[in-house]
Amino acid sequence: MRENIVVFGLSSNVELTAEICEHLDLKPGKIDVKHFADGEILIEPLESVRGKHVYIVQSTSTPVSETYMEVLIAIDACKRASAKEITVVMPYFGYARQDRKARARQPISAKLMANLLETAGADRVVTIDLHAPQIQGFFDIPTDDLTAVAMIGQYYRKKGFDQDIVVVSPDHGGATRARKLADTIPNSSIAIIDKRRTKPNVAEAMNLIGEVDGKIAIVIDDMVDTAGSLMGGINMLYEKGAKEVYCACTHGILSGPAVERIANSDIKELLITNTISLSEEAKSVSKIKQISVAYMLAKCIEAIQDHTPVSTLFDLFND
Amino acid sequence: MRENIVVFGLSSNVELTAEICEHLDLKPGKIDVKHFADGEILIEPLESVRGKHVYIVQSTSTPVSETYMEVLIAIDACKRASAKEITVVMPYFGYARQDRKARARQPISAKLMANLLETAGADRVVTIDLHAPQIQGFFDIPTDDLTAVAMIGQYYRKKGFDQDIVVVSPDHGGATRARKLADTIPNSSIAIIDKRRTKPNVAEAMNLIGEVDGKIAIVIDDMVDTAGSLMGGINMLYEKGAKEVYCACTHGILSGPAVERIANSDIKELLITNTISLSEEAKSVSKIKQISVAYMLAKCIEAIQDHTPVSTLFDLFND
Amino acid sequence: MRENIVVFGLSSNVELTAEICEHLDLKPGKIDVKHFADGEILIEPLESVRGKHVYIVQSTSTPVSETYMEVLIAIDACKRASAKEITVVMPYFGYARQDRKARARQPISAKLMANLLETAGADRVVTIDLHAPQIQGFFDIPTDDLTAVAMIGQYYRKKGFDQDIVVVSPDHGGATRARKLADTIPNSSIAIIDKRRTKPNVAEAMNLIGEVDGKIAIVIDDMVDTAGSLMGGINMLYEKGAKEVYCACTHGILSGPAVERIANSDIKELLITNTISLSEEAKSVSKIKQISVAYMLAKCIEAIQDHTPVSTLFDLFND
Amino acid sequence: MRENIVVFGLSSNVELTAEICEHLDLKPGKIDVKHFADGEILIEPLESVRGKHVYIVQSTSTPVSETYMEVLIAIDACKRASAKEITVVMPYFGYARQDRKARARQPISAKLMANLLETAGADRVVTIDLHAPQIQGFFDIPTDDLTAVAMIGQYYRKKGFDQDIVVVSPDHGGATRARKLADTIPNSSIAIIDKRRTKPNVAEAMNLIGEVDGKIAIVIDDMVDTAGSLMGGINMLYEKGAKEVYCACTHGILSGPAVERIANSDIKELLITNTISLSEEAKSVSKIKQISVAYMLAKCIEAIQDHTPVSTLFDLFND
Amino acid sequence: MRENIVVFGLSSNVELTAEICEHLDLKPGKIDVKHFADGEILIEPLESVRGKHVYIVQSTSTPVSETYMEVLIAIDACKRASAKEITVVMPYFGYARQDRKARARQPISAKLMANLLETAGADRVVTIDLHAPQIQGFFDIPTDDLTAVAMIGQYYRKKGFDQDIVVVSPDHGGATRARKLADTIPNSSIAIIDKRRTKPNVAEAMNLIGEVDGKIAIVIDDMVDTAGSLMGGINMLYEKGAKEVYCACTHGILSGPAVERIANSDIKELLITNTISLSEEAKSVSKIKQISVAYMLAKCIEAIQDHTPVSTLFDLFND
Amino acid sequence: MRENIVVFGLSSNVELTAEICEHLDLKPGKIDVKHFADGEILIEPLESVRGKHVYIVQSTSTPVSETYMEVLIAIDACKRASAKEITVVMPYFGYARQDRKARARQPISAKLMANLLETAGADRVVTIDLHAPQIQGFFDIPTDDLTAVAMIGQYYRKKGFDQDIVVVSPDHGGATRARKLADTIPNSSIAIIDKRRTKPNVAEAMNLIGEVDGKIAIVIDDMVDTAGSLMGGINMLYEKGAKEVYCACTHGILSGPAVERIANSDIKELLITNTISLSEEAKSVSKIKQISVAYMLAKCIEAIQDHTPVSTLFDLFND
Repeated sequence: MRENIVVFGLSSNVELTAEICEHLDLKPGKIDVKHFADGEILIEPLESVRGKHVYIVQSTSTPVSETYMEVLIAIDACKRASAKEITVVMPYFGYARQDRKARARQPISAKLMANLLETAGADRVVTIDLHAPQIQGFFDIPTDDLTAVAMIGQYYRKKGFDQDIVVVSPDHGGATRARKLADTIPNSSIAIIDKRRTKPNVAEAMNLIGEVDGKIAIVIDDMVDTAGSLMGGINMLYEKGAKEVYCACTHGILSGPAVERIANSDIKELLITNTISLSEEAKSVSKIKQISVAYMLAKCIEAIQDHTPVSTLFDLFND
Repeated sequence: MRENIVVFGLSSNVELTAEICEHLDLKPGKIDVKHFADGEILIEPLESVRGKHVYIVQSTSTPVSETYMEVLIAIDACKRASAKEITVVMPYFGYARQDRKARARQPISAKLMANLLETAGADRVVTIDLHAPQIQGFFDIPTDDLTAVAMIGQYYRKKGFDQDIVVVSPDHGGATRARKLADTIPNSSIAIIDKRRTKPNVAEAMNLIGEVDGKIAIVIDDMVDTAGSLMGGINMLYEKGAKEVYCACTHGILSGPAVERIANSDIKELLITNTISLSEEAKSVSKIKQISVAYMLAKCIEAIQDHTPVSTLFDLFND
Repeated sequence: MRENIVVFGLSSNVELTAEICEHLDLKPGKIDVKHFADGEILIEPLESVRGKHVYIVQSTSTPVSETYMEVLIAIDACKRASAKEITVVMPYFGYARQDRKARARQPISAKLMANLLETAGADRVVTIDLHAPQIQGFFDIPTDDLTAVAMIGQYYRKKGFDQDIVVVSPDHGGATRARKLADTIPNSSIAIIDKRRTKPNVAEAMNLIGEVDGKIAIVIDDMVDTAGSLMGGINMLYEKGAKEVYCACTHGILSGPAVERIANSDIKELLITNTISLSEEAKSVSKIKQISVAYMLAKCIEAIQDHTPVSTLFDLFND
Repeated sequence: MRENIVVFGLSSNVELTAEICEHLDLKPGKIDVKHFADGEILIEPLESVRGKHVYIVQSTSTPVSETYMEVLIAIDACKRASAKEITVVMPYFGYARQDRKARARQPISAKLMANLLETAGADRVVTIDLHAPQIQGFFDIPTDDLTAVAMIGQYYRKKGFDQDIVVVSPDHGGATRARKLADTIPNSSIAIIDKRRTKPNVAEAMNLIGEVDGKIAIVIDDMVDTAGSLMGGINMLYEKGAKEVYCACTHGILSGPAVERIANSDIKELLITNTISLSEEAKSVSKIKQISVAYMLAKCIEAIQDHTPVSTLFDLFND
Repeated sequence: MRENIVVFGLSSNVELTAEICEHLDLKPGKIDVKHFADGEILIEPLESVRGKHVYIVQSTSTPVSETYMEVLIAIDACKRASAKEITVVMPYFGYARQDRKARARQPISAKLMANLLETAGADRVVTIDLHAPQIQGFFDIPTDDLTAVAMIGQYYRKKGFDQDIVVVSPDHGGATRARKLADTIPNSSIAIIDKRRTKPNVAEAMNLIGEVDGKIAIVIDDMVDTAGSLMGGINMLYEKGAKEVYCACTHGILSGPAVERIANSDIKELLITNTISLSEEAKSVSKIKQISVAYMLAKCIEAIQDHTPVSTLFDLFND
Repeated sequence: MRENIVVFGLSSNVELTAEICEHLDLKPGKIDVKHFADGEILIEPLESVRGKHVYIVQSTSTPVSETYMEVLIAIDACKRASAKEITVVMPYFGYARQDRKARARQPISAKLMANLLETAGADRVVTIDLHAPQIQGFFDIPTDDLTAVAMIGQYYRKKGFDQDIVVVSPDHGGATRARKLADTIPNSSIAIIDKRRTKPNVAEAMNLIGEVDGKIAIVIDDMVDTAGSLMGGINMLYEKGAKEVYCACTHGILSGPAVERIANSDIKELLITNTISLSEEAKSVSKIKQISVAYMLAKCIEAIQDHTPVSTLFDLFND
């Protein structure tokens, strides 16, 4: 049954792919990914995909344009080479924040990316912690949006966090996510950082809704990018009396000054997963802690191959 | 320039259409909407639409299946009769809450409805206060998602609400909306009702994040359906010391026991708009107050016809 | 081989589905069909459909808008849950009579419904006695349009009808169907009721083409809806000398006053099938006789699963 | 307003196109239609179509494959040359009889042709007397299915036919068409030829439903192809006592032995239109009478250009 | 494994299909291809295709319009009869030369044909020596473009051609093909015939780039149609000192005066394959030599069925 | 008439856009193109595009992935903002060389890019000197593939090149292009560089077909990328006796070591156009000469707006 499956890892997730394949007891599929001097990309599977179920693992993380082009071209190559079914395993779905017209004449790039993937020939998409769950609906093909929140909760429970915990959402849109994490941690409550722009060109005012005084605060978000606004939030939490401030994000984009900011901050620990490969700089910062989604993705691929429900996957983390 | 336009109102919004047309100095287009004994619907425009820009006004409110079928069939009739362009003005977009797979094997009916509208032949959609702004991305055709929040803010300012106001979100997902309304009301803060299900088959626990003691609370939501969970929220706000509790919702679905519940509640006033027609029962309840979106929609249609930006519409309500 | 199949029955055909499944020696698939107070519908398969061949049994009979919405949403749910193939078994295809523009600006709702089913994700459709066989061509997916005419002919032969029989078409469009039934009954001829509208707003004149004097007349139609024009036809047949008048229709819509009209008429017997569930009122009328299409549908599903021809199904009824 | 229109006539309808253009006071568009020695076709418009509304006049009559290829290639050329809108005027729609699966594994070629026209880039189709009105629904683009029945009725009224007339349908499927023609002729009734195949490989038995004794019979059909079964029908009508037998068909395909059969038959006159060009052989037969649809088509093109209703066209023929 | 496959040959390649099937140890599928008097075509598979992988063998050679219609209709029939997958084996792809807009307002008929095949329902296409390899990209479905060049090279090597050989391209566009053939023949060089049109309406001037003096010249092209310009080329090659002139073309269209021209020319031998059936006239000309692609196509079908790479097929001809 | 047009230039062609707009007497449209730290791109038109014809000027040159993402996102933004028509002016079409499967399992990225542009919402594409003219057929929307060859020919004629000129194609595929340029230069002939790979892993052998001894050689190609193989060709031309070697390429990609190679070579002059912006390094090399396509593109935009033929554009350069 594992004969008709090939798992290819593109540039962004070579290590994660290797780890997934180990769990599946498979060798990663051989594929040549060339970047030419002028920036064009050529992708050639080096083994036959005729009649096979192909999984292409690629987070569309930095450099976003190139990682998207790689996955689109790889899909085209596999489709034209008569693959039976192409599942894109995209642990981090780039452009997810451009999921609506926030202002007049904005694109909805997340929908555009979904359309491009379907046009290229994707048959199914597996993602983790989409920025907004509605993005599932940007696709007309089946999607499985897994979540790392159960894993993150397990991590803190194992750390012994079981009282005086407050889970903090760094903005209004994240309140639901904070509640979900709080549900996995005994005796925890939630709080929300309430930012507002009082006038154009004036810095945002920041306020806290809820209580953190004397508590361990865990700021939860789906991703950490430049970490700019996160820094302000952490400071405020200490000012409001938080004993310790932790932060957990599924996707560690960590672009620009992010790593330096975190290294220099009063944050106790930043927990991220390996949906995005860590830079060398980030690896050297001890307070950045990474846990792996490989086992969860391997189990998901198994479920897809064996036609068993993906929905039971999360019991794995309910120790 | 107003020659090549026809505005049709289907069953759900006959009065609103009349009001819009009055603002546009137009007669509503004549259209025959027949419901046969077996439940089939036949829709026939009674005037030529050849080469015209057709606007079909229809909220997909109760009875949702029928209002959707009406608008789909009306689009088909206009498309086959050679309309130049068909804009669906759907003040209330039904099925908006089914915008993601909340559990395994759920449909994403909001995306399905978007696909059905495009398949039937819609060229553009105008909506008001979509349940989630990401639903804009469910469409590949241009959408204009207007908002009644500016109108609602203006309403409270005119009422003299300018201190000790707290805008309350009834759930985690509505925190952003609460912040938006608070931004339009001087000296207001926000609070969030934090519901959680402790165990399967046990009633939800309800908590409040933020302060309401001694304040006027305005609970803001995009829609009020059976008003069940709203009732619990109002009681808690009074218990937490709120002086008065108001409620504002763009879409007054008011299904099942909603009207009776509101009439019997301690709510001071429920503010809704006329995106959905009010039942006779609801009209008889004095604490239900309705304001009209007709002027805003008429201005939007004008902007579409004249190719001027829709984005400036909201200055209308910044008295 | 029967492992990878699930048969779901939606609201309109719960009993028929049970009967089909019995013939297939299968349990009907578990599926939750919720209708909320505001009219929205939520459909959730309660068992995994990953990689399975799903059959959704639903006639789009009264309430037509809701039965269509149910089947569209059920398809969406199954598609997004990675069903391998979705066959819609729609014994009665609603809106079939709106299959052309009879007047300017009419929709072609039957084509619209076909498009909606394909957009939602249907892979194949099975129907019985489509109002016009051309409706098969409204689909680009494979369709199997079965017919109950062979069953109906068998019914009358078993009843001993073998001479002095005239099969009557109630309108011009049904002449071919009358011929088909007559071909299965020994020594039968055909006649046609010739209605014409002499002037606008004047009642239709009705005439008979062919002979019924001294014969048993069987009026055959694909469906009986309000039974209004059928009543006139029956009276005329008796006036023209028919000894007894029977009526056979595949689809018993029986909306509005239909059941009462039939009960009070001089018709000897109305033969219908169970493509549409019978109301309690109709069940109480002894001259309404129902025969089941379940065995034929079960055999058709078997043929689809086993990749054997569907076309040989009808030999079943050539006793 | 007549500046942005080009009317091209392809091989099948050069004369009809010239006639239409005369009514429109336009010169036919210049277009080069080359057939190479190997059978490939090259079509090049010889004047600019950028931004213009292009009408391509082509009946897909004999040689059907070539006339379809011509129109498909012409559409492609006009689309790629930036035509604004392409209307296919197809007075005779070939393959219309293959509009359903009459037997297992048959194609539905009429639907296929509709799909091919849309794929090539047609924006609208104008036809005359489609074999089945349901074929309108094979298209998702606007269609206008005109009818020559009003013209045909006018022709017979002018001839003084006003009593003892019976309009005969040559088969069961044509009963509706016979009724429509009868409605335009004073004091006329209808009759139907009832053919049935008693056993496989045995010649069809033929019977008459209705009365023709002492009357003038007008056999009406949408098309006359090889005229084989028509001949049998005519003989039977005389046997049943018809005084004179006329025949009227919109589309005179007249393939194979048709012209000879008609010339040698007892038919008084065969009335056809010029939707299909007449062969020299057919022109030499005096009892074949042709009337022109050019004026009706020109009026239809005018209505499309001016955005006036096409539905009022038929009053033209209600003298 | 060979159970679920059916290979149908349409009109153009009956013999080739038989030969392919022999290699596959299969009987050709039974299919009825009717051409009616008026030019319409009806195609009915005479055996079940439900759930089968269908291969339809058809070169779209003369009469091109009919061979295309046949294959489109056959695809439609198989799709509607629930074939699992439809592969079109089109050894010669007609209209390949219309692969770009050479002049303003030209169609790109090769792309149109690709679109028509996909619209009808083709899932994969197998071709041989496409006129331009870019035509592969006209399809979004998988294509396998085989080449007969390896077979042709083998033919000449077996003939003992191993020195003083020059492979000649008859025009600028064929230089790459000439190089490919030269690569398979020891000690060969290439030359190119350089045609140019000096002025409108003046005959083309013809020149030779490269050396042929004292050599055996093999003119290579993908197809030979009317052979007109080939004749001029051959004469020039002799004038430039070629010892002998051979010609090799994958596709022997041989339309119009081609066969006569070749018979009367000084060409030593014209080598073609059986992608296109040879006319009786052509068969009688001894200097026209035909080799078969059946084995290559059979191996390709095997590879598709067995999911083994097609790319290794060509080693077959590297003796 | 120039009111309803907006011309936006994205990152790759800011200067060219300014020049085009000057010829059109228009201001370039204001558009905000943001590249975030993580690599995501946000594009917002800063002026209304409702109902306007939008031209987006962008060569998809280095960095190719980003320039493609920019143009796709810009199209999405304009489409959702209700632009009437979107024309992509892509002077250099990236990925054009990946226009066929040169080896098994290769993608056809040029077709993929065409599909992505159509999916995003492009209505028309304008390009210059596509690598292969067949790429026009990769689009189903109208394309105008302009050519700079006429401009290049004019350049050399003005330089006084009128005898002893040989136009050289650097490879087999470019022979047609060489002939086209030769046609514009009096008394010129052509030659072709014949590269072949004798064995795997052995350097290509290079030969010359045609004569260059004592002549001025102009090597013509559609693009110059790393200039590697060009260098070898130039050396060989001098060895074969060429007096002077010039080179002309429409698209000056000049990636990697290209500029240095050219600066150090014996080439007399490299003529390129400004379809791709020149790097500072390239600008400093005096033997790289650039001519502008702005006037030609402006005239093309005018023709599209005014609905006049684009095909007459090239007479501009026939001094």
